[in-house]
Amino acid sequence: MTADGSWRTYEGEAFPPVLTAALSAFVDQGYHGTSVREIASRAGLSVPGLYHHYPSKQAMLVGITSSAMAELLDRSSRAESEAGPAPADRFDAVVESLLLFHVHRRDVAFVCSTEIRSLDPAEREAYVGQRDAQQRMLDRIVLDGVDAGVFGTAHPLDASRAVTTMCVGVATWYRPGGRLDPAALVDVYSELARGTVQATARP
Amino acid sequence: MTADGSWRTYEGEAFPPVLTAALSAFVDQGYHGTSVREIASRAGLSVPGLYHHYPSKQAMLVGITSSAMAELLDRSSRAESEAGPAPADRFDAVVESLLLFHVHRRDVAFVCSTEIRSLDPAEREAYVGQRDAQQRMLDRIVLDGVDAGVFGTAHPLDASRAVTTMCVGVATWYRPGGRLDPAALVDVYSELARGTVQATARP
Repeated sequence: MTADGSWRTYEGEAFPPVLTAALSAFVDQGYHGTSVREIASRAGLSVPGLYHHYPSKQAMLVGITSSAMAELLDRSSRAESEAGPAPADRFDAVVESLLLFHVHRRDVAFVCSTEIRSLDPAEREAYVGQRDAQQRMLDRIVLDGVDAGVFGTAHPLDASRAVTTMCVGVATWYRPGGRLDPAALVDVYSELARGTVQATARP
Repeated sequence: MTADGSWRTYEGEAFPPVLTAALSAFVDQGYHGTSVREIASRAGLSVPGLYHHYPSKQAMLVGITSSAMAELLDRSSRAESEAGPAPADRFDAVVESLLLFHVHRRDVAFVCSTEIRSLDPAEREAYVGQRDAQQRMLDRIVLDGVDAGVFGTAHPLDASRAVTTMCVGVATWYRPGGRLDPAALVDVYSELARGTVQATARP
């Protein structure tokens, strides 16, 4: 059980210390440019000590990408459920969830978008499956909105992907203390996302 | 002088062979994960032979990112000029230019979006300046469209950035031979982009 609205709350670290160390190294130098020794050093561990937590650099990358996508899916699913049945409300909720995740998990989002290439094939397939599940959640909402006559786009699946892309892209430029705080960002991007699906005016 | 519409034409390679070799290695392994020896091998050169062309791996990365952004700016400027004065026409032309570039220069776009971190500070500043110039081109168009009453968005600069993001994002999933050929992609994304700025219906 989780409290209503808890999908909006981001507190503390996303990961245990070892994965946080791996994440920062991957952000700075890329997966292939990062040695296990470098990660151990950032985590304040010896190399054998690091291997006690994760058997390989690949396992650390998988730990980051798979738990990030699981978290995003979980938050977005709860956002959609709490929004009730109306497509416009579900759309706003999932867009907000995508935005908040990419505001608060910027480094994770960068590694997910840049290092899919570095996942072993089976892990890559699993990751793409999670990513597709997230996209299909929004796809269904946009299709429902078109069916209900509240979204006017002639290209619902392309619009759904474009909305995801603009929300994910926030991770590349958003900085705390900048022009928009997270609530203002959500207001602005909700309007842009509604425009992209050609939503009719809300009552 | 260039012929009208030539900003739409992509023929041949974007780069000389050495930069093409560096690009493919950076795409596969990242900048920090790529050795000069690896690039030389892909280019069919010895390491000293490679250094005859470029003095460092950094110079190769700069060669890729700076010429890519210069090409994008040049094509987009010509697209806007040829479109005439109407903001809606200029908007469609620059959106088309962004889309075609990111369809035809997918690998370059990936390296530009992932390896800004790997540019030396002065080079990074120069790159960000080019990228900002591209963004300001679209910003001016969207602001002109709002002034002219043809775009209804209350957030023109955010809308302009979101449109750029959705066009740039095409590079991450577009594949030749897929559901949309470049012309169809331009049709679909032009509609999505107009929705994002809340363009009034075209006559």
